[in-house]
Amino acid sequence: MGQERLHERHLRWSDVRKPLSSGRPRGYRPSHPRGSAASSGGPVPTYVYDFTQGGMDQRDLLGGKGANLAEMTRLGLPVPPGFTITTEACRAWLATGQEPEGLRAQVDEHLAGLEARMGRRLGQPDDPLLVSVRSGAKFSMPGMMETVLDVGLNDESVRGLAERSGDERFAWDSYRRLLQMFGTTVLGIAAEHFHDALGEVASLHQAPCDLDLGAPEWREVVDAYKGLVREHAGREFPQDPREQLDLAVRAVFDSWNAERAVLYRRQERIPGDLGTAVNVVAMVFGNLGTGSGTGVAFTRDPATGQQGVYGDYLQNAQGEDVVAGTRNTLPLAEMERIDARSYAELLRTMEVLEGHYRDLCDIEFTVERGTLWLLQTRVGKRTAAAAFRIACQLVDQGLIDEDEAVRRVSGEQLAQLMFPRFATGTSAERVARGMGASPGAAVGRAVFDSAAAVARSRAGEDVVLVRRETNPDDLDGMIAARGVLTSRGGKTSHAAVVARGMGRTCVCGADALDVDAAARRMVVRRPGAAPLVVDEGEVISIDGSSGDVFLGEVPVVDSPVVEYFEGRLDPGGEEADDLVRAVHRLMSRADAARRLRVRANADNGEDAARARRFGAEGVGLCRTEHMFLGERRRSVERLILADDEDEQEEALAALLPLQRGDFERLLAAMDGLPVTVRLLDPPLHEFLPDLTELSVRVAVAQARGGADEADERMLQAVHRLHEQNPMLGLRGVRLGLVVPGLFTMQVRALAEAAAARTQEGGRPRVEVMIPLVGSVQELELVRERSEEVLREVERATGVELAALIGTMVELPRAALTAGQIAGAAQFFSFGTNDLTQMTWGFSRDDVEAAFFPAYLERGVFGVSPFESLDVDGVGRLVEIAVREGRAARPDLKLGVCGEHGGDPASVHFFHRVGLDYVSCSPFRVPVARLEAGRAALAEGGGSDSR
Amino acid sequence: MGQERLHERHLRWSDVRKPLSSGRPRGYRPSHPRGSAASSGGPVPTYVYDFTQGGMDQRDLLGGKGANLAEMTRLGLPVPPGFTITTEACRAWLATGQEPEGLRAQVDEHLAGLEARMGRRLGQPDDPLLVSVRSGAKFSMPGMMETVLDVGLNDESVRGLAERSGDERFAWDSYRRLLQMFGTTVLGIAAEHFHDALGEVASLHQAPCDLDLGAPEWREVVDAYKGLVREHAGREFPQDPREQLDLAVRAVFDSWNAERAVLYRRQERIPGDLGTAVNVVAMVFGNLGTGSGTGVAFTRDPATGQQGVYGDYLQNAQGEDVVAGTRNTLPLAEMERIDARSYAELLRTMEVLEGHYRDLCDIEFTVERGTLWLLQTRVGKRTAAAAFRIACQLVDQGLIDEDEAVRRVSGEQLAQLMFPRFATGTSAERVARGMGASPGAAVGRAVFDSAAAVARSRAGEDVVLVRRETNPDDLDGMIAARGVLTSRGGKTSHAAVVARGMGRTCVCGADALDVDAAARRMVVRRPGAAPLVVDEGEVISIDGSSGDVFLGEVPVVDSPVVEYFEGRLDPGGEEADDLVRAVHRLMSRADAARRLRVRANADNGEDAARARRFGAEGVGLCRTEHMFLGERRRSVERLILADDEDEQEEALAALLPLQRGDFERLLAAMDGLPVTVRLLDPPLHEFLPDLTELSVRVAVAQARGGADEADERMLQAVHRLHEQNPMLGLRGVRLGLVVPGLFTMQVRALAEAAAARTQEGGRPRVEVMIPLVGSVQELELVRERSEEVLREVERATGVELAALIGTMVELPRAALTAGQIAGAAQFFSFGTNDLTQMTWGFSRDDVEAAFFPAYLERGVFGVSPFESLDVDGVGRLVEIAVREGRAARPDLKLGVCGEHGGDPASVHFFHRVGLDYVSCSPFRVPVARLEAGRAALAEGGGSDSR
Repeated sequence: MGQERLHERHLRWSDVRKPLSSGRPRGYRPSHPRGSAASSGGPVPTYVYDFTQGGMDQRDLLGGKGANLAEMTRLGLPVPPGFTITTEACRAWLATGQEPEGLRAQVDEHLAGLEARMGRRLGQPDDPLLVSVRSGAKFSMPGMMETVLDVGLNDESVRGLAERSGDERFAWDSYRRLLQMFGTTVLGIAAEHFHDALGEVASLHQAPCDLDLGAPEWREVVDAYKGLVREHAGREFPQDPREQLDLAVRAVFDSWNAERAVLYRRQERIPGDLGTAVNVVAMVFGNLGTGSGTGVAFTRDPATGQQGVYGDYLQNAQGEDVVAGTRNTLPLAEMERIDARSYAELLRTMEVLEGHYRDLCDIEFTVERGTLWLLQTRVGKRTAAAAFRIACQLVDQGLIDEDEAVRRVSGEQLAQLMFPRFATGTSAERVARGMGASPGAAVGRAVFDSAAAVARSRAGEDVVLVRRETNPDDLDGMIAARGVLTSRGGKTSHAAVVARGMGRTCVCGADALDVDAAARRMVVRRPGAAPLVVDEGEVISIDGSSGDVFLGEVPVVDSPVVEYFEGRLDPGGEEADDLVRAVHRLMSRADAARRLRVRANADNGEDAARARRFGAEGVGLCRTEHMFLGERRRSVERLILADDEDEQEEALAALLPLQRGDFERLLAAMDGLPVTVRLLDPPLHEFLPDLTELSVRVAVAQARGGADEADERMLQAVHRLHEQNPMLGLRGVRLGLVVPGLFTMQVRALAEAAAARTQEGGRPRVEVMIPLVGSVQELELVRERSEEVLREVERATGVELAALIGTMVELPRAALTAGQIAGAAQFFSFGTNDLTQMTWGFSRDDVEAAFFPAYLERGVFGVSPFESLDVDGVGRLVEIAVREGRAARPDLKLGVCGEHGGDPASVHFFHRVGLDYVSCSPFRVPVARLEAGRAALAEGGGSDSR
Repeated sequence: MGQERLHERHLRWSDVRKPLSSGRPRGYRPSHPRGSAASSGGPVPTYVYDFTQGGMDQRDLLGGKGANLAEMTRLGLPVPPGFTITTEACRAWLATGQEPEGLRAQVDEHLAGLEARMGRRLGQPDDPLLVSVRSGAKFSMPGMMETVLDVGLNDESVRGLAERSGDERFAWDSYRRLLQMFGTTVLGIAAEHFHDALGEVASLHQAPCDLDLGAPEWREVVDAYKGLVREHAGREFPQDPREQLDLAVRAVFDSWNAERAVLYRRQERIPGDLGTAVNVVAMVFGNLGTGSGTGVAFTRDPATGQQGVYGDYLQNAQGEDVVAGTRNTLPLAEMERIDARSYAELLRTMEVLEGHYRDLCDIEFTVERGTLWLLQTRVGKRTAAAAFRIACQLVDQGLIDEDEAVRRVSGEQLAQLMFPRFATGTSAERVARGMGASPGAAVGRAVFDSAAAVARSRAGEDVVLVRRETNPDDLDGMIAARGVLTSRGGKTSHAAVVARGMGRTCVCGADALDVDAAARRMVVRRPGAAPLVVDEGEVISIDGSSGDVFLGEVPVVDSPVVEYFEGRLDPGGEEADDLVRAVHRLMSRADAARRLRVRANADNGEDAARARRFGAEGVGLCRTEHMFLGERRRSVERLILADDEDEQEEALAALLPLQRGDFERLLAAMDGLPVTVRLLDPPLHEFLPDLTELSVRVAVAQARGGADEADERMLQAVHRLHEQNPMLGLRGVRLGLVVPGLFTMQVRALAEAAAARTQEGGRPRVEVMIPLVGSVQELELVRERSEEVLREVERATGVELAALIGTMVELPRAALTAGQIAGAAQFFSFGTNDLTQMTWGFSRDDVEAAFFPAYLERGVFGVSPFESLDVDGVGRLVEIAVREGRAARPDLKLGVCGEHGGDPASVHFFHRVGLDYVSCSPFRVPVARLEAGRAALAEGGGSDSR
């Protein structure tokens, strides 16, 4: 909300506009021509631009605020006069530590111009020109940078201001505000000193609130503040208005390198060498009586996208008062009743701005004694639903084309539209909060193990699975549950990743919960309240966006966008609202534009079928390990515990028909589309009990007289297979080479399934993917054997199998030797999860909770590299592999199957490097489709998604 | 040993030599000029070279054997005539599956030339020319490729041979040999069929040995063999000599792609597309009576390097008889007594060859009825000691210069000279065998835990530490022990790596041992014998080269080379033998030539001092984690278990003076040389008890009535810190950022130590190394804080500390973003152990035993990438980091501190990419110095080390 107010009786908006169309403003003196040197003879850059000189394309030089103020000025809109000191001046100052040569002369000149235009000098004793000095960088850094208002007031001019405004209290309050802001910002005095001094005066006069202080009390505060300056800065507050201005400008420049700003930029990945611009603007005041006021206006409803008048207005007030929340604002429409003329002017202005910016604009304005002044505008933030509606509205109004409309919405917004939500106004009690790890709203009876989840779910109950943390054994329970709640782990913990993959709601890391699976309950620790015990069967509700955990049932609202994607809602039918129509329209355009194909990660026929409804053009990753869990675990254990090869063969033979059935269902669901099946990836001991738990059980049983013999035998096996770092152990192709029957069985099952499908008239398109390959020799060995199996099945069935054989590129070495590996691979699929782990050398299971928060806070990451691809490191490996793989084999098929396949920024990267497809979880398929379209459209010009 | 014998009465060596100096041999018909097309009109390559045409530089085209036979022919030495079919012919044949155009005509021509020269035709019935057909590839592939002797014999010519030789038995034995070799090699009949058939004839005639069979029996065998050919190959043995030759040539070519040859090449990293040459050589026979014989000669003693006559001779024999060992050979010198003329001729020939090859030559020869024939020569293999002595002798003889002498020895040879060895002829019993993981010979009392090792060692006993496998807790014990023996783990297990680093003898993976630490004993399982129980205190001896484990004491011999490096033996003094003088001489030359500096990895003053004596020019890696073990573990536990920051600070404060003392001793030992100290790298839980062990203890105690409270508290901490993949967990710079006091304490201790050393007049040169950096932001954060600490210590002590701050490049991402990281780093040190782990995605703790044997066997690796740097993958990252790091900061200091710093092949790589130094364990410092010199000298021409 704007905080500048202009006190001037003569200047009118109409006066300010005139020169732009018809001539120069009264008293306006031309500054030097744009681009020329300032005053000295040297080739000095133009460091200062009048608002009449810049424009919205000059954000680099003038900052966002300065560029938009100039743009509005150019449009003839009522902006208080002022000028912008460029980011180039800032950079020069910070680089040398000295005021750049020529800057002072240019400021002199522009200040003189401003004074001439306003008809009075800065701080002129009897009628002072006051200015605000405000930062404005290229990228918004809210709250990071410094501002000083009311520059120009001093012991003399405060009296002039009182007299001219006819409001002595206002004048002294303004003076103390200058002292306070100048003291903290320019002189570096701690804010609490000013706060304490004000408190002392207030309590002395028994004034419960600032508003109860009159002019004499504010004079006392001014004296106290001047004392503070003397005491803490060792100098007097500068009475020279020009010195105030220069010091304030310098302070804004310096604030670019303040610790919090540096940290913010590190977190937001904003380059540290851009510098900030400084805007020097004539003050206007909304608190000069009931004919004055301040407000914020939106050209459309940022919540829904509906056209109309949205915003707030506060009569006789400054922006600070709105922020402080001491008085209630009025709906903007009510301004018509108070000041019909200014209101009409505002509406006209809004129309101009929206037409000009071709988008929802967010406007800050002030009315000073009946005159409207615009203090800032920018393209406004909006909700996801509003974004889709507005984009389509603008197309219909002819303001933008459909390509631009697609660029105006984002995959993240689409994702938000797809999750069910809790209805507002619940009476349920929020008892804890974790991380919103997988959005959505889930309600169900709390269960504390997978078996209970499955049992209750089969009995028709909705359940929420609550665990300390999850592991692959919990998969059945996670599938059966409506949502997953954990007390440990972050956004990339097993629970979070798997839940996101399944589109299952998940809250993780709710550390106020003590989960006791054995006792089938959890204890919720609450600050200042008794711990709460939640037993199995009690209903809880979790919000996967906010991370909130409620006791009791909160009503859930379904997403119509998902109904549409599922095919249950016809976008042309009557039931579809304008949001669904907008989504349909923009998705259609994105699909037509995109170059990347979008596949889904799906491990069974059901997921594949849903993914296909969501627009998936194949399966990019079928993880076969999920096919080894549940009831099949017995066979897997037999395989591992086998004493000889015959027993191994038997165990594998028992698994073969089951695997074949899995594959048949998957191929049926994706008939005619490619299906990539990854051979078994995890280490074998993931299918065995936990070493520590089993050791304890056996030891305790032994201490009590004798352990179960089967347990003891199992413990030996677990010991034998135990690894210090399973992620870096015997898994993937390594396991396939050490236990060759395993991969052979999988390839045979897949080949037989494809043959059966073909015989039934289907069109299976099989791609066999070998995981964890680091060298071409590994791939060659498995490939040879796999081809033998394929030929055997071809001979046995008479069906020709045109299966592709390729590899996952998930080790740095695979990327670095891609040229060699491509010699043996028909396709690469980048496994960017593991590739990220190996490239950074951290396991997401271990490090996320341990140090990601600290890393994000300190700006080492802007975003977790597991969420969005690390372009500099992991991305470079991807680029190397793409380039050298294609050079070795021009028809090499390239895709990605990590979590990043559904991440918007990553999709743009994959588009740029030229992959053939991305693959992601079924629920992210529409997101990837949209972003792939945006990436293609961004190439043709227009804004990128970033 | 050569197996060809020429039966020819007219041809004399003198006849063969003549044409080279004075004209053409009798009957010699010139073949087409070298390089021209064969016979057809087309541009056919020259596929066949007479021995008179080639030379030793043509190994690519003629293979090693062919090139050397040609070279000897050129030298006028007595080589049986013959010709070589080139590797190019082999490649063409294998690529198309057809005989290359023109080959047949060229063979015709050369065979005709050979026949004309020998005065008789191949297989001529009354006086047959016989030839051997032998493979000879560029790189020796012993036992991999095929050979057929006596080609040219058939049912008729065998009678001619009998008559001409006057030895019917000899003729029929030769024929059956041809049948046998031809049957197995060309026709693919299993060798055991021939073996069985021979056995049947022998037993029928009650002949206990082949020698007891006469001509009639060999005829029976020939009949039986012809039956075998008929039965198994479905054809008659070809009676046409030319068909025999053609089929034999084809079989040799095909043997290039035999499974075992492919596997061998994969393991040895020999390119698969080189092909083999085929040598067709007139047969000579050493078994035509007492005036004939066969032998092998060395121009110097390959065991000691002494000049003289070394070798063996066997009268009236073929090479096969020597190999079979059925008769005892005579020392070569005794040949003088038997055949003085041939012996003198041999000595003269040896002199010619050594002068020509300028190296020890290994010669195979045959004397046929008084005439000497040379069948093969090559530069001979030799022991490490011989290599050093011979290289210096050749310099003294003026045959080579000192640069070449340095190129002629290798770091591995030097390493072999440095280890103590068991004296030969021990009476101690070998009870088991493991892998020789760290060479040397250790004798001591068996102890089964670290505490016992320390206690007994303090009491003056020598001990050998025996463990199932070792972990960091065993470090004290390993330091105290003479050697380490484990029953599990491979050459890169913890025990092996640490032992090699300390120069401690180690045998690992001796899986016949059941180590029971609790019972303080091991049980040795022995095939066919009762298990042996070895209790603590019993003396055992282990050989770290062979992997042998002995019960009882085996006497040990010290290495004089180590005495020399240690400075206890003056190479110019009387006690030094010629080996020590040779080592000193070549090391001095290597030091003068090398561009790489050599530092040592040393964690304490003692190791650093030894490293300096061994020639280290600084410490490249001081691992500070070793400073947190032993008695200091209590403080580390306090740090980890601390409830608040004050307790943490206290624990750190207790460690500070101890760390400072460590550093002072280290800096004193390396005064004036750079010392790189790595801040704490491993995860904290490495300092806590094992989760499973502690869980069991607590659970069992609880089951018995109540656990120790301290144990329970510790268990909670261990649980909290437990990681699934500690290698990928909270460690290195991550830990430093999450527990900032830790690194601060270490930097302070180091800075204070440097200040103290300076005040004492020392010249400490400190380099602070931040481990596990993946992004420049991590480094910047630690760097800033470290610099603050350095400035604080400077202010407090008044000493200026010119410490460098840099990072370990051990994550792929660090290499990939080296350009960014170099902005904040004054040096990079490549941590190639971790870099290998991350690039390949396997942990050496977990995978070596699990699948390295299978990988080596199947040729995925030629050598473990932990032993020798994987140039294609890891090496590429090193190259990227070197190039982009130096581009960003030209004065960036670059080194390597992984195990690879002491590996010869890797040292050459590091030289090529332009590192400033390598750092390795103290015992490898001389090896690295030598190899760095060889790498530099290899650049100037001459042979490379590989």
